[in-house]
Amino acid sequence: MIRFFEKDPYSPIQYVYEIDDILHKERSEFQEIMVVSNSYFGKMLILDGVVQMTERDEFFYHEMLTHVAMHAHPSPKRVVVIGGGDGGAVREVVKHEGVEKVYFIEIDERVIDVSRKFFPSIAEEVDNPKVEVHNMDGAEFIKNRPGDIDVIIVDSTDIIGFAKSLFTVDFFRSAHDALSGDGLFVTLSESLHFHKDMVVEIQETMKMVFPIVDLYTAPIATYAGNWWAFSIASKKLDPREIRNDHAIDAKYYSDEIHGISFLPRGLYSKLMARKLGW
Amino acid sequence: MIRFFEKDPYSPIQYVYEIDDILHKERSEFQEIMVVSNSYFGKMLILDGVVQMTERDEFFYHEMLTHVAMHAHPSPKRVVVIGGGDGGAVREVVKHEGVEKVYFIEIDERVIDVSRKFFPSIAEEVDNPKVEVHNMDGAEFIKNRPGDIDVIIVDSTDIIGFAKSLFTVDFFRSAHDALSGDGLFVTLSESLHFHKDMVVEIQETMKMVFPIVDLYTAPIATYAGNWWAFSIASKKLDPREIRNDHAIDAKYYSDEIHGISFLPRGLYSKLMARKLGW
Repeated sequence: MIRFFEKDPYSPIQYVYEIDDILHKERSEFQEIMVVSNSYFGKMLILDGVVQMTERDEFFYHEMLTHVAMHAHPSPKRVVVIGGGDGGAVREVVKHEGVEKVYFIEIDERVIDVSRKFFPSIAEEVDNPKVEVHNMDGAEFIKNRPGDIDVIIVDSTDIIGFAKSLFTVDFFRSAHDALSGDGLFVTLSESLHFHKDMVVEIQETMKMVFPIVDLYTAPIATYAGNWWAFSIASKKLDPREIRNDHAIDAKYYSDEIHGISFLPRGLYSKLMARKLGW
Repeated sequence: MIRFFEKDPYSPIQYVYEIDDILHKERSEFQEIMVVSNSYFGKMLILDGVVQMTERDEFFYHEMLTHVAMHAHPSPKRVVVIGGGDGGAVREVVKHEGVEKVYFIEIDERVIDVSRKFFPSIAEEVDNPKVEVHNMDGAEFIKNRPGDIDVIIVDSTDIIGFAKSLFTVDFFRSAHDALSGDGLFVTLSESLHFHKDMVVEIQETMKMVFPIVDLYTAPIATYAGNWWAFSIASKKLDPREIRNDHAIDAKYYSDEIHGISFLPRGLYSKLMARKLGW
């Protein structure tokens, strides 16, 4: 038994896991990639010392990252997934049968390879013919595209290091311009418990570009602070409304969850005024 | 700097805190009571090695433990709080001006004394003339009472050791009989991430006694699994409905939060059928 101490510079609580085995460890061009096994969570993917996902509970994150935007859009056909090398977000996106093309932009191809090997049930759609993989910076990919994308999903690591380029006003502007008229954009935004200033900054930056910006949350046990925020934006569609009633197979996401996941208006106003009581 | 490793036998993740100072440590008749300080959370109360509350985020738990039942009841006047020696639940209950009497049943009077000293803003209503303190087992207190209580609130430690008596069918039956016709009962029920079998067992046991049993959640960063569940029951009133519109000063709870905190019916059915996907 090995004790794994998570190295999350943003968390006031350090999480410690009992590890049965280290199944894989390498340093790629971009980061340290590690796969370990834990008796409760199953296999876990760890990048630069931070837990990215576990077999047991990855669906909370992957379903909530993708299906809110995918259901707020009336019929998403062309989707961009930036990051998420494990393939979990791509797997959820292709559950929508109307999807014709998924541009899967993962800067570190080693994460995809490692996931194919150790997480086959998560990476299972990475080689779907609808999926076009590009190993490059998502900010570069999205630049100067015609406005033909329906949904853009950012599934990056924490907002430090090379992921920072995915949270700038320039990136949000490129994303805005790459979207069709009904397009939606969604990105992870850290924890409402521990990183609420960061959440506000992301929302404010997105508001410089998008007319509609909103926030929803999901409970994710393995991310510090757990109460995980997602920032969602669009050119004209209210993301709280469900327009795509295509039934998908999900463990947590549902129409009911879509509705209650958005931060109530009153709490949202307090958040943006930086007047939350914590 | 001292590192405090939480001793929570129920959690697959161990939480570690950097402690600036141990302000107090004693062994009472019932448990080890410790008060420490942390640069992010402020002062923290720790019982038998498990974090009970922190100055920074205690209101999430105390507001959500109390105000859902207090607002589902049309006009709560007589309230019983079992446990919660820090006084946080009592403080929230007396925010409702119509409350005439709070029976505060804390088995360990040392927790109340320590909280008066180290957490004056949390224990501030413990000596309110409406509050009657009894240092005894809550299960004993509630036995054979006339049905004159409007709301019963259980704020115990984790469901091990001496707190177990507060989760038996006998206790729920006593609580049921102690309640008036409009009465509501609420108790903590651990984490929906890590302890969902325990949540189901509590709900099933409550259903042996109460015709209406439901579940709501709140995000609490310092409890393992975070996604904290509360079981609520009544003789006839649907706890999802707000009947008491007395405005109270709260940081997290609101009418909007009341509504979205309840588990959606679909997810609730899956939980009770033990068919959740995690």
